[in-house]
Amino acid sequence: MPELRKDPIIGRWVIISTERAKRPSDFKLEPEPTGNSNNCPFCEGHEMSTPPEILAYRNDHSGPNGPGWRIRVVPNKFPALRIEGSLERHGEGMFDNMTGVGAHEVMIETPKHFENLTQLPEQAVEELIWTYHDRLIDLKKDPRLRYVMIFKNKGLAAGASLEHTHSQLIALPVVPKRVSEELVGSREYYSFKERCIFCDIIRQELKDGLRVVLENPGFVAIEPYAPRAPFETWILPKVHNPRFENAQKQEYEQLAKILQQTLKKIEAALGNPPYNYMIHTTPFHHEESPYYHWHLEIMPKLTKFAGFEWGTGFYINPTPPEQAAEFLRETKID
Amino acid sequence: MPELRKDPIIGRWVIISTERAKRPSDFKLEPEPTGNSNNCPFCEGHEMSTPPEILAYRNDHSGPNGPGWRIRVVPNKFPALRIEGSLERHGEGMFDNMTGVGAHEVMIETPKHFENLTQLPEQAVEELIWTYHDRLIDLKKDPRLRYVMIFKNKGLAAGASLEHTHSQLIALPVVPKRVSEELVGSREYYSFKERCIFCDIIRQELKDGLRVVLENPGFVAIEPYAPRAPFETWILPKVHNPRFENAQKQEYEQLAKILQQTLKKIEAALGNPPYNYMIHTTPFHHEESPYYHWHLEIMPKLTKFAGFEWGTGFYINPTPPEQAAEFLRETKID
Repeated sequence: MPELRKDPIIGRWVIISTERAKRPSDFKLEPEPTGNSNNCPFCEGHEMSTPPEILAYRNDHSGPNGPGWRIRVVPNKFPALRIEGSLERHGEGMFDNMTGVGAHEVMIETPKHFENLTQLPEQAVEELIWTYHDRLIDLKKDPRLRYVMIFKNKGLAAGASLEHTHSQLIALPVVPKRVSEELVGSREYYSFKERCIFCDIIRQELKDGLRVVLENPGFVAIEPYAPRAPFETWILPKVHNPRFENAQKQEYEQLAKILQQTLKKIEAALGNPPYNYMIHTTPFHHEESPYYHWHLEIMPKLTKFAGFEWGTGFYINPTPPEQAAEFLRETKID
Repeated sequence: MPELRKDPIIGRWVIISTERAKRPSDFKLEPEPTGNSNNCPFCEGHEMSTPPEILAYRNDHSGPNGPGWRIRVVPNKFPALRIEGSLERHGEGMFDNMTGVGAHEVMIETPKHFENLTQLPEQAVEELIWTYHDRLIDLKKDPRLRYVMIFKNKGLAAGASLEHTHSQLIALPVVPKRVSEELVGSREYYSFKERCIFCDIIRQELKDGLRVVLENPGFVAIEPYAPRAPFETWILPKVHNPRFENAQKQEYEQLAKILQQTLKKIEAALGNPPYNYMIHTTPFHHEESPYYHWHLEIMPKLTKFAGFEWGTGFYINPTPPEQAAEFLRETKID
């Protein structure tokens, strides 16, 4: 019998469709183009093919915009938003419009073309997490900005237009709808229960164990109770913290570990699928709250979304999260 | 300069990305598999390959589940929800669960395999609209149901698993999130302005003309001010009406006309892209409202959604709707 399940944070219902239940081997992945590093603007030695770097983690004695870096942050060459100009709001009749002020940056995760996030040394993943942190801290100084979305697209089907492994950020002058919904939902829960809803989820998941993929002293990786898509996975810090950028050094070490291990499991279990991940954190200029809890969401791209999902904001998921968690738990990685 | 635009109904911001501006010819469509009618369960003569029909529009002297039909409605063989069983709600700790009671039906739009909705005679499209109406009216009698989502997926990339042209419906025991958001947003606007927000949009769009694609005495097809995706198109009845199923005969005639013409324009302008459309209407057992206005949304599938969209509920659209409307207006159809 199929089930309807409700996401406790934002109230979205999903269908867990047992009639269509799918195991990892049932998903057909679209073929990805074969690797080609010709003219890749992200490769070491091609630094002049990108706009000048904003930040780089470099080896000693190497200079900006030349070789010798480990991670490099550059503006997106085709930015969705621009950092120049003033933030102006105006109406067009009944409609609301704002100049597209913001930032759109690319974080190149390694100088080598044929190396994925899961193949990098743990230390490199930790540096990537610090890069996220450093860019957030820096962009926070710009009073026009309200939110920074940090995300990664891997694979063409997940929207990555360049193959060389990279993350991105988009800094926005507004708080995006999805994040507002989480803030509203978690505040409502808090006003009723006087507890953080994410902390409650973590407690229940660790007790049940059914949907836990991995844990370490600082973090837990779970399949959420009402996932939008098969193998949707969330990574949450165990200790309440509203802001990603306010974590401690050891927490970033543990985040790097659990993120890389979780991605390794997803790659091994599902045949290296395209995926997206993104960080949800408290907006700039927002109260430090006892109710919001930063986290990272991973969405493997295994199914196509169709009219029903578009029209309703309602998802049909053929893989119960308990099954997905079990598969991932049992998947061996080195 | 890129722009941020806000959807006035549900408050979603989108980026209209002028740096990445795209004309229709810039979109690369994924190749669709070539047509094959072998073993198609929807073709005339294969009626026994589907579950027994729920409704059919038939020629005289033809009997159920045999040839002689023009439109045929059957249960989905792999339903996301099931009509049998009682609606039971329970908690799993802090989570909410409901049995997956509902309906999932397929509306086969023509007996012929190699015929698309745009190639059918206008009369056939009108019969399809009546089929939507008849199924809604019938399902409304089931007190367990709250909403019926009528939608169409065309093309593999838009989620159509069978090529033979068809629509679908999913009847739900809950009101989906997206529809609730529209109800809440339009009610708020009404309480402030004492006018229907959709009626206001129609008035402004018809006056400006910038985003109008087509109109006839009963309906207007527009590119919305803050579209999630290139060539997103809405078809709205000009006269306020909260419910799709409460329209008059002449309105359905005009809907059939404008729907087919709009789809013809989209196909001609964009090279027969995959698309989804869906009807948004007032839920069952909901007050007849002065604020909600049924409509149909068409979403051509031209771009991939990536981490940013997932994470934020925030969209980057490379085609300003004014440009899209102009292209569609200028596209000639027979």
